[in-house]
Amino acid sequence: MDIARIEAAAERLKGHARRTPLLSAPALDEIAGRRVLVKPECLQHTGSFKFRGGWAAVSALSPEACAKGVIAYSSGNHAQGVAMAARAHNAPAVIIMPSDAPASKIEGTRALGAEVVLYDRGVESREEIGERLSDERGLTLIKPYDEPEVIAGQGTCGLEIAEQAARMGITQADVLVCCGGGGLTAGIALALEARAPGMRVHPAEPEGFDDTARSLRAGKQLSNAQEAGGLCDAILTPRPGDLTFPITSRLCGPGVVVNDDEVLRAMALAFRHLKVVAEPGGAVALAGALFHGSELEGDTVIATISGGNVDAAVFARALALV
Amino acid sequence: MDIARIEAAAERLKGHARRTPLLSAPALDEIAGRRVLVKPECLQHTGSFKFRGGWAAVSALSPEACAKGVIAYSSGNHAQGVAMAARAHNAPAVIIMPSDAPASKIEGTRALGAEVVLYDRGVESREEIGERLSDERGLTLIKPYDEPEVIAGQGTCGLEIAEQAARMGITQADVLVCCGGGGLTAGIALALEARAPGMRVHPAEPEGFDDTARSLRAGKQLSNAQEAGGLCDAILTPRPGDLTFPITSRLCGPGVVVNDDEVLRAMALAFRHLKVVAEPGGAVALAGALFHGSELEGDTVIATISGGNVDAAVFARALALV
Repeated sequence: MDIARIEAAAERLKGHARRTPLLSAPALDEIAGRRVLVKPECLQHTGSFKFRGGWAAVSALSPEACAKGVIAYSSGNHAQGVAMAARAHNAPAVIIMPSDAPASKIEGTRALGAEVVLYDRGVESREEIGERLSDERGLTLIKPYDEPEVIAGQGTCGLEIAEQAARMGITQADVLVCCGGGGLTAGIALALEARAPGMRVHPAEPEGFDDTARSLRAGKQLSNAQEAGGLCDAILTPRPGDLTFPITSRLCGPGVVVNDDEVLRAMALAFRHLKVVAEPGGAVALAGALFHGSELEGDTVIATISGGNVDAAVFARALALV
Repeated sequence: MDIARIEAAAERLKGHARRTPLLSAPALDEIAGRRVLVKPECLQHTGSFKFRGGWAAVSALSPEACAKGVIAYSSGNHAQGVAMAARAHNAPAVIIMPSDAPASKIEGTRALGAEVVLYDRGVESREEIGERLSDERGLTLIKPYDEPEVIAGQGTCGLEIAEQAARMGITQADVLVCCGGGGLTAGIALALEARAPGMRVHPAEPEGFDDTARSLRAGKQLSNAQEAGGLCDAILTPRPGDLTFPITSRLCGPGVVVNDDEVLRAMALAFRHLKVVAEPGGAVALAGALFHGSELEGDTVIATISGGNVDAAVFARALALV
């Protein structure tokens, strides 16, 4: 994995992925006690950064593989990203989703023309189901983060951060990235290593699912005790990826770990001051930027909002805190 | 008023106003039965397009006038736009707001350093209060829409629509614009007349406050029977402006009038599919695009979301419809 692969992905995404803006609001700067810039990937196609990786992976397939189709397992955002990218490339898509994924994500994936296969997150292994179906039908498996083209696609978000910040005269910053398996975190870290070496990436995770923060401290991949049940459904992965961890471990600063109350408050503040919809898993980095400033060093923090696919009932819980 | 004035405003806004993206979602296209593009000015600084006009007006002042300060009357969005622009120019700002404006808008305006003067919308005239204070303190009055620099500033949104649509190969479209006094509508119409003459602007208004739609039909400025009390607080103006009406009347197609239920549903759909926060007055154009297709002609509709400054309780009403 290197910057050339991210640049190649950026070339293939041109005119297809949205270039999301860098947002800010004086009220957020005051809360954080430093300048806060937000990269709202909730505004990306399908409502999350996952469209980048999905498009990068599908667009890299041979015409033959594309015609046979793709398969992906996902709590919902990768599902929709792959489904939309596949549809645009006329590739059939099968998506394996946990049965407890938010209804909006399951519906969203079906609406994009994909065949959805549900599984029980507590009992079954999505990896096994994925490999079996992939063998049976000749589908290409697009893993959610341990896949070079996917990491490269997510890295295009980092290229944009570097360019947009530079245009504002910013070359030094803590960059907080919502982290599940680490695809977005690794991709952004690689992009910034090449384009904005004065910035340092910190993965942001929810309490109870802080496998990457603990793994970075331990210097080896550690697992979470639990695999399901948290508020932040988008980033509940069992452990750091085999491809992503060597990258995050080489390039990232310490992880930031936030609790559910901070996540809901960050969602409420994004509603009020940025006018964007963040899902819980997409708000962990902003929560870290706003409420964990003592763990950061610089006077500027850049936080991703990685997605906005949240059911109304959960969003209403956040609104009650405004 | 002509395109040169809008171009001059665009030059002064460069690097200060955000260039908001053009968003879309397959689900919205399906509902509308045509291609729907959304210009989310809720993502503009201060949460509405009003920052454009505020900046255009303040940046056009002489150094002497700027030092004395500015005054504005506004239901909230113009207030915040002018307040933030004034602060950036070191100009004192006095803002006259109706006492029934959303709490978030009054607080937002104060947080931007402005002095807020409240008045009773049903009894007092904000124009009279504005002129008196302006005389007493030597402040320059920045009217919310009947002011050439303000119209020029709002018109920069139209320049962006023309450029962004052209890059997608779109030169023909119905352009629905949320319309109160008509500043945004007139500005966009002027910009598109010069840059995208194949597009036709339609003002969008809520039922009971459809003064522009009726005035366009009658060929003269008509007033609303009521002046307050509607859901769409941002666009409750008594009648079309003296400067804006001649422009909209020359350039616009028939107005589109939507009801409160359609407005709330449009807010819910923007939440669900675009991940942006629309306030009621900011959602009327999207409501028109989605639910009044029979009044439009082309296969592409572009709708502004003019602002996102909505209190949580009102937003929760919309969420209940998702």
